[in-house]
Amino acid sequence: MSQHCFLNGKLVSLSKATLSVHDIGVLRGFGLFEALRTYKRKPFHLGDHLRRLKNAAERFNIQVPMSDAKIARAIDALVAKNVSKNKEANIRIILTGGEAIHLIEFRPAHPTFYILAEEFKPPLTQYYQSGCTLIVQEFQRQFPEYKTTNYIQAVSLQTKMKKAGALEILYVSDGLVRECSASNIFIVKRGVLVTPHKMILEGITRKVVIQEARRAGIRVKERDVSVQELYNADEAFIASSFKEIVPVIKVGNRKIGNGKVSPTTTRVIDLFRAATHLNHQGRTLINVVL
Amino acid sequence: MSQHCFLNGKLVSLSKATLSVHDIGVLRGFGLFEALRTYKRKPFHLGDHLRRLKNAAERFNIQVPMSDAKIARAIDALVAKNVSKNKEANIRIILTGGEAIHLIEFRPAHPTFYILAEEFKPPLTQYYQSGCTLIVQEFQRQFPEYKTTNYIQAVSLQTKMKKAGALEILYVSDGLVRECSASNIFIVKRGVLVTPHKMILEGITRKVVIQEARRAGIRVKERDVSVQELYNADEAFIASSFKEIVPVIKVGNRKIGNGKVSPTTTRVIDLFRAATHLNHQGRTLINVVL
Repeated sequence: MSQHCFLNGKLVSLSKATLSVHDIGVLRGFGLFEALRTYKRKPFHLGDHLRRLKNAAERFNIQVPMSDAKIARAIDALVAKNVSKNKEANIRIILTGGEAIHLIEFRPAHPTFYILAEEFKPPLTQYYQSGCTLIVQEFQRQFPEYKTTNYIQAVSLQTKMKKAGALEILYVSDGLVRECSASNIFIVKRGVLVTPHKMILEGITRKVVIQEARRAGIRVKERDVSVQELYNADEAFIASSFKEIVPVIKVGNRKIGNGKVSPTTTRVIDLFRAATHLNHQGRTLINVVL
Repeated sequence: MSQHCFLNGKLVSLSKATLSVHDIGVLRGFGLFEALRTYKRKPFHLGDHLRRLKNAAERFNIQVPMSDAKIARAIDALVAKNVSKNKEANIRIILTGGEAIHLIEFRPAHPTFYILAEEFKPPLTQYYQSGCTLIVQEFQRQFPEYKTTNYIQAVSLQTKMKKAGALEILYVSDGLVRECSASNIFIVKRGVLVTPHKMILEGITRKVVIQEARRAGIRVKERDVSVQELYNADEAFIASSFKEIVPVIKVGNRKIGNGKVSPTTTRVIDLFRAATHLNHQGRTLINVVL
């Protein structure tokens, strides 16, 4: 199966999809992105992802060059081309300022915009059954509310993370738990979910977890979470589009709760799984985008 | 004259020099660079730039795939190809982690490495004669000692900067003056040069200014500089490879000194200009690189 990419308005073979050496996304790291996956081969909460992308694009004055409906159709075409029928896809939407002018300026109406889709490979089942470890890094992303491509910190910590047998990097700053490099974090204390609310990316999976938990009668508080609170939590878990909900049993050298996957987290996993299926029953293009 | 680029070991026509859509320099902003210019068509302080690039590459575990001598030869070839005989060149050396693996990892030994050279266009003469304005931004670069491609803040402030008629963006944090978006800053008080020393890029032009000033008997202090000190300075100037030394006469709405280009700054400009010429008399490839 030949792999394709949707680049600047066209479906092109991946082998021919290239970027200019002058792209300001490379020269100046001036880029935004969204990452999402499919369930039943349809992008999950595409509307939310596109809304977030558009907010970021507005903040950084880059035009999103395609309508939501066209993006949705492009994704469908890519998934059909790139991913075997019985598999799911991970999708990346990348928006940069396009070719740099005078090395540091760009033309807002001439961005680089591309979509990648490939077969989705979920994290190992063991993480869901036995939980995962996080390493801890003092760090605060610079534009936390936007999904910029500035991941130099996360990339440079991958080796350390793997050596520690960890699945994610937890960013903490000013004594507070913020977010992981590509996930949001929740703690559970006496059955209540608590999750940071400031200086973080407002994740789509985070949003679905909060919605579904509340709908199921679980209390959820969005507020500052101190590092100490995390260490003293009964349970913790991370949430992201690609990982869904993964229980956290260890942060650095500290065991969280009893070091096992505990009841509230298991319940949230079940609720989220139910939501991902519900969300794709009888769904049409329109209600994804809106 | 057809423009060329030196990409991954080869001199290629710029129109054929392209990057993968999977380059981690775009997907994750995982890149480093150096920017320098020629005097008498030879790169100025290339050895210092390459040393800094190598330090950064080591920190972020990317291999610089060419020796210093080969890079020097590639630059000479590019300048000869791209820049008319009576002109100078600006040169950019870009190093990214290469093609992303699993979207966030990379192979240290398979980077993307390219060199761009084009005709150097100096800032307007008026800046040297009448001085420039800076806008002020509360900001701290995340890896200030390295020249990473993370310039999302600087790029997004270009419009504001131009509207203000300013030449640069001054970053301040914790009440201290740090650096400009692409220059270092100096203040002058009672004939003494003072320049920030922490949480900044150690610029090559900054280094030459300090050396040449000391050699000429001007006192230089490298230490913290408060924003208040800048506002109360007798003079101020910025220093960068592309701008050389530009007097600063206004920061935000505040006039610096008497709002005119003043004697010590003028002297530093002269010293720097002398140094750029000296540096290229009888110079061989070897003594640039070493």
